[in-house]
Amino acid sequence: MKDNLPIQLTPTISWDKGILKILDQTKLPKVEKYIETSDYKEVIEAIKRLSIRGAPALGCAGAYACALVAYKCNSLVKEAFVEEILPAWNLIANARPTAVNLMWAVNIMKKQLEDYLENTDWDLIETRRYILNCAKQIHKDDIDRCDNLCRHGASLFPDNARVMTVCNTGGLCSGGIGTALGCVQYAHAFKKKVEVYVPETRPLLQGARLNTWELERSKIPYKLITDSMAGSVMRDKKIDLVIVGADRIAKNGDAANKIGTYNLAVLAKHHDIPFYVAAPDSTVDRNIKSGEDIPIEERPSAEISSYLWPDKVYNPAFDVTPFELIDTIITEKGYWK
Amino acid sequence: MKDNLPIQLTPTISWDKGILKILDQTKLPKVEKYIETSDYKEVIEAIKRLSIRGAPALGCAGAYACALVAYKCNSLVKEAFVEEILPAWNLIANARPTAVNLMWAVNIMKKQLEDYLENTDWDLIETRRYILNCAKQIHKDDIDRCDNLCRHGASLFPDNARVMTVCNTGGLCSGGIGTALGCVQYAHAFKKKVEVYVPETRPLLQGARLNTWELERSKIPYKLITDSMAGSVMRDKKIDLVIVGADRIAKNGDAANKIGTYNLAVLAKHHDIPFYVAAPDSTVDRNIKSGEDIPIEERPSAEISSYLWPDKVYNPAFDVTPFELIDTIITEKGYWK
Repeated sequence: MKDNLPIQLTPTISWDKGILKILDQTKLPKVEKYIETSDYKEVIEAIKRLSIRGAPALGCAGAYACALVAYKCNSLVKEAFVEEILPAWNLIANARPTAVNLMWAVNIMKKQLEDYLENTDWDLIETRRYILNCAKQIHKDDIDRCDNLCRHGASLFPDNARVMTVCNTGGLCSGGIGTALGCVQYAHAFKKKVEVYVPETRPLLQGARLNTWELERSKIPYKLITDSMAGSVMRDKKIDLVIVGADRIAKNGDAANKIGTYNLAVLAKHHDIPFYVAAPDSTVDRNIKSGEDIPIEERPSAEISSYLWPDKVYNPAFDVTPFELIDTIITEKGYWK
Repeated sequence: MKDNLPIQLTPTISWDKGILKILDQTKLPKVEKYIETSDYKEVIEAIKRLSIRGAPALGCAGAYACALVAYKCNSLVKEAFVEEILPAWNLIANARPTAVNLMWAVNIMKKQLEDYLENTDWDLIETRRYILNCAKQIHKDDIDRCDNLCRHGASLFPDNARVMTVCNTGGLCSGGIGTALGCVQYAHAFKKKVEVYVPETRPLLQGARLNTWELERSKIPYKLITDSMAGSVMRDKKIDLVIVGADRIAKNGDAANKIGTYNLAVLAKHHDIPFYVAAPDSTVDRNIKSGEDIPIEERPSAEISSYLWPDKVYNPAFDVTPFELIDTIITEKGYWK
């Protein structure tokens, strides 16, 4: 069965002989261009300007960036090595504030490095190789997590499902096939007929640029709309379910995701349409009680308006959907409620 | 009191010695440029491409366009004159399908011309002059209607009102001070402190381009947001009331307005925020029972996306908000409920 399932058609991120290759998503759909770098600072820049984005993909990018740091560090003394790499790793962990996956991935790297150094004789070359393998394992696990998550998600789709989503949550947001849009891909592969309504997702148009690109390649029918049309399309009974991703989920199930997600959750509730959140378990931040404690990134005003009064712009990149508006959270482990 | 009230700072539309001047709103806020024409077909083109837009302004533009037709028609025989102008007047009435005001204005012109010709000796020059005066009267009445409407509307504002609106409904949408944004202007003039959250209003960004331009000129504080941020801003308790315009209101109170209005109405209901519609009585189409019968204009897909797959775009220009989501409809005559 697995062979018939959708795979990521163009790698979002990959490691090749010391060089990290990142598909530059700011250039899509017009240009498919890779950023190739061995400098972790360039990865941080790529993350900040959203050349790579999406919570699971950020986890992979963060892990590989940690490996780049290690390969640039030439300290022959263990303690000096650790002292040199950790500040850089912390910068990576905090490149963007809302998605927890960057922090999550760097924390795994730290923990594994600590265990490794405790139990192994010090060797710079071997340690670097170990760190790279940890990063590769995070990437591989991400592929498997997406696979499991998308099976769970797709099984919630009825036949002839007309789906609404937001932002991009397909292969481009992860190391694998994605989360919410991955579920759509799986449902399509399972021969449930699916059609997708794609809100353009202002301000950066991830829906209009990235979802259309992925859906075209998968030959899944879709319609591009503005974010403001969501309610109207639901009222016209054109939507059977809404499925979105998440950047961070609090312990109580409140989910932070791309700005506009909350609009869709309220609209779905008003129209009695199921609203699903699909995200890997790594997105759940058990240190955070509720959505109120999730930091919301404010992005530059220039993203919204190139007009005359840029100081009068409010540009939060995320919003929080309370758990009571979510019908279920789908992870690779199953369903939350 | 009247002298202290806000007025339209830059005329949206004006008549000067046989030339109709229309402020080209597609160029705002960067360029303030007028279209000057004596050809009604150019007015229709200006209406279609939204150089002039907003239901009340369309009424004025339609009436003046009728006058342009009359001034171009040289038939010295009454019946030939009427036969020549009516087809052009009908084209004007149907330049855009959703706003009823074009049709409304042309119907007034027709009725008044009919009465005039029945009761007056035929004279080409006098008839033209009469038609122009009818158009000027429609414009003048629009100014008065806006004034009354905005007084009613502003009186619903609390002190320190934080207001959300959509599209542009200020001086630019009418011959006078506007409707929903006009109410904001009046509340500001009445020394109620107001602050406006301005959704950019995709696809054509009337909020980002036109509301910001008007609010800057009136020195009213505002924040520009994307349409997708509306729910989040309401949830953060930053909004005291929502006020929007209308392009056509059915007999039962269902109101068609710029796409995205319905989103705001549902979101306002969910957050217990009053939702007001402000529109002149001419917007009410008593021939139409409910919102279901209001024709919704679909606009060119190029407005949404200049990307690679323009055939996959759905672009309705309006949506319908059912009366049950509306707290009151404000007209120049008062309140509906």
